[in-house]
Amino acid sequence: MRRLGLVLWLGVGMGSLPLPASAQSARSLLNQAKAFFKPLPGTPVAKADNPLTPEKIQLGRMLYHDPRLSKSGLISCNTCHNLALGGVDGLPTSLGHRWTAGPRNAPTVYNAALNVTQFWDGRSPDVEDQATKPIENPIEMAATESLVVARLKSIPTYVELFRKAFPEEEDPITLVNIGKAIGAFERTLLTPSRFDRFLKGDLQALSKQELKGLSLFITKGCVSCHYGVNVGGEKFAKFERGADLGRFAVTKNEKDRHVFRVPTLRNVARTAPYFHTGDVWSLKEAVQIMAEKQLNKQMKPDEVEALVAFLQSLTGAPPKEALDLPTLPASTATTAQPEF
Amino acid sequence: MRRLGLVLWLGVGMGSLPLPASAQSARSLLNQAKAFFKPLPGTPVAKADNPLTPEKIQLGRMLYHDPRLSKSGLISCNTCHNLALGGVDGLPTSLGHRWTAGPRNAPTVYNAALNVTQFWDGRSPDVEDQATKPIENPIEMAATESLVVARLKSIPTYVELFRKAFPEEEDPITLVNIGKAIGAFERTLLTPSRFDRFLKGDLQALSKQELKGLSLFITKGCVSCHYGVNVGGEKFAKFERGADLGRFAVTKNEKDRHVFRVPTLRNVARTAPYFHTGDVWSLKEAVQIMAEKQLNKQMKPDEVEALVAFLQSLTGAPPKEALDLPTLPASTATTAQPEF
Repeated sequence: MRRLGLVLWLGVGMGSLPLPASAQSARSLLNQAKAFFKPLPGTPVAKADNPLTPEKIQLGRMLYHDPRLSKSGLISCNTCHNLALGGVDGLPTSLGHRWTAGPRNAPTVYNAALNVTQFWDGRSPDVEDQATKPIENPIEMAATESLVVARLKSIPTYVELFRKAFPEEEDPITLVNIGKAIGAFERTLLTPSRFDRFLKGDLQALSKQELKGLSLFITKGCVSCHYGVNVGGEKFAKFERGADLGRFAVTKNEKDRHVFRVPTLRNVARTAPYFHTGDVWSLKEAVQIMAEKQLNKQMKPDEVEALVAFLQSLTGAPPKEALDLPTLPASTATTAQPEF
Repeated sequence: MRRLGLVLWLGVGMGSLPLPASAQSARSLLNQAKAFFKPLPGTPVAKADNPLTPEKIQLGRMLYHDPRLSKSGLISCNTCHNLALGGVDGLPTSLGHRWTAGPRNAPTVYNAALNVTQFWDGRSPDVEDQATKPIENPIEMAATESLVVARLKSIPTYVELFRKAFPEEEDPITLVNIGKAIGAFERTLLTPSRFDRFLKGDLQALSKQELKGLSLFITKGCVSCHYGVNVGGEKFAKFERGADLGRFAVTKNEKDRHVFRVPTLRNVARTAPYFHTGDVWSLKEAVQIMAEKQLNKQMKPDEVEALVAFLQSLTGAPPKEALDLPTLPASTATTAQPEF
């Protein structure tokens, strides 16, 4: 109804009458917002050395869901980055091989391809590289390259699918190509939201309360870290919480103590618990903590409510194909058995 | 091409000429087979007290994939009955809460609704009842009814979906209704195969080798246990392998020592490892063991090959919707947190 009203009004007043106050402020907020944010791209963006093909994306989808990439045969990418659950596991920190709790909260896989680095400590440059790491991490999937390559090579359907996904390679089943296929699939996991519609000019896409939240998000300074296409994911910032030294462990640089890559806030309403520690379950509380610790500000209750409302407008839906479960080929007599 | 040939031939010879030898023997084998087997029903069959509605099936799909039905928040029905992997986990015996190995191999969920009893020991009458059991089993999902009911009630979307799935009930979020919804979804998990096409009269649906296997399956006596719509799943049989006493633990009846419900052989080529023990990885070896132990027969290598070929014709595809991952609603501030 509201939208219809605006359309009619534009129809008669096109350019000649001033916008009503609320539309005017929405327009001005949109202009501000455009300086900080970008809508999601309409189609997945490839990495230069990993062109996206339907064959590679489909192979990646299969590998993403295949628990045989883990030593135990039980853990797939989807176990901790569950596509049904906002791309996370909903646990404080993930449980891996032999029920071992990892040190950090699982970041969402949705839109992760658009983060400029991967992992909380930014130790990986892109999703293609990132996807290979949990496979070999002894407390995650606990496999080795030789184990997973041997498993995949023992399954004729996979041999054929790798051949089609990497047609120019002699011996395409490698950990690097496993990462390229999974990364290609992950690049399709974009979740356009109402915020994207707003950024593209639909002034009716956000409610008044959400617009208020967006305005606060900018004026209070949240945007100093959470900017860009992913509303985060572009820079590193110090956030001391728990003993985790963050990026210091990667760079050994003193200034990187307790420094983490700023997470995307897309779908944040679906990805509790929060922070690398995964110890805060309420989005409201997370906003308050961020305001106090990072911005040294006390937010009023109505400001927190508005910020949470804005953050909820970042919840989006993935393309339908993202939620297609593949049918995985059966193991064969020579497939290495699960070890657990 | 072969099929076209037959159609043309029938067109000119309809009823007047004798069938060629191979078609004649396929026809006679079909008539034999019809005495033992039935094709899958074209649509899911409801249980009398659990009418199938789209709302209930969709709720069941969500619950099937929701790990919050487990105490840890990590294990869903799909963890052990993975729809991408033939409805099983591919492990000897399943790993549950805190990585605890259960005593038996996970049976496939595909077509399970058509088995006349559930679980290896038949202790559950139908999928509606079965679906509730792993939720409360301390070495599987390790939850309690009060925990899962409280979790679901804390999530407004689930409250609404239960209301729509059970419109006549005051307080529909109960363990019994969780089972009814999951059971309703599971009743849709039917996988018609080439064997079904054959049973419906398509004499070209099976290869010569598969027909030979089917003939052996009947004449050697496999069919004395593996009969019916599920090629198994209808009776109990003694199979002493490992220490497991099977149905004896349920009935305390001496004659039930080492007695198990005969498993379906539908999709058996996708559901290794085999037997309640999950200790045999090759279908060929499983066939040989069955022949020796259960039928007291030595099969020749070419007979085993033919039987395996026939068993492979039982691999079917589920309806497309069976492989739709749902988007699960987020937990709220009052949702009981994972415990692990």
